[in-house]
Amino acid sequence: MNWQEIIGIVAGCCTTIAFLPQVIKTWKSKSAKDLSLSMFLIFFTGVLLWLTYGILISDIPVILANGATLVLSGILLFFKIRFK
Amino acid sequence: MNWQEIIGIVAGCCTTIAFLPQVIKTWKSKSAKDLSLSMFLIFFTGVLLWLTYGILISDIPVILANGATLVLSGILLFFKIRFK
Repeated sequence: MNWQEIIGIVAGCCTTIAFLPQVIKTWKSKSAKDLSLSMFLIFFTGVLLWLTYGILISDIPVILANGATLVLSGILLFFKIRFK
Repeated sequence: MNWQEIIGIVAGCCTTIAFLPQVIKTWKSKSAKDLSLSMFLIFFTGVLLWLTYGILISDIPVILANGATLVLSGILLFFKIRFK
């Protein structure tokens, strides 16, 4: 693994882990009033396309980061619909 | 531009545009109570690293998407600190 890939992996960890506090916060408060549904719908689609792009260009950091972010943003999307 | 790059650009547009409704919603409501500060701090750092990674691997979709997302997530971070 070269240093470019390391930066990519760290970047992926940050943008993935970033969703964890939001998932925990929303789960605890059972409130998603201030979260934008349009945001999460468009974001979820974008992450799905990034995953596709990562697979097409065979870029490991892009694949790993977007695979994980897809799961977490999917959970937030579910909370937003569930809790209103 | 090949079709891989087109998917990358569309993916980048989605994950960038996704922040616009949240920026508008937070600006209108002047409320960011349900937004997680830790989320936006870690996310902002991650996007900065993705931009660095994009420059290192000379990947246009990664550079464009993360450059734009850096600006929008920076605005949200400012709102979160400003509005509480």
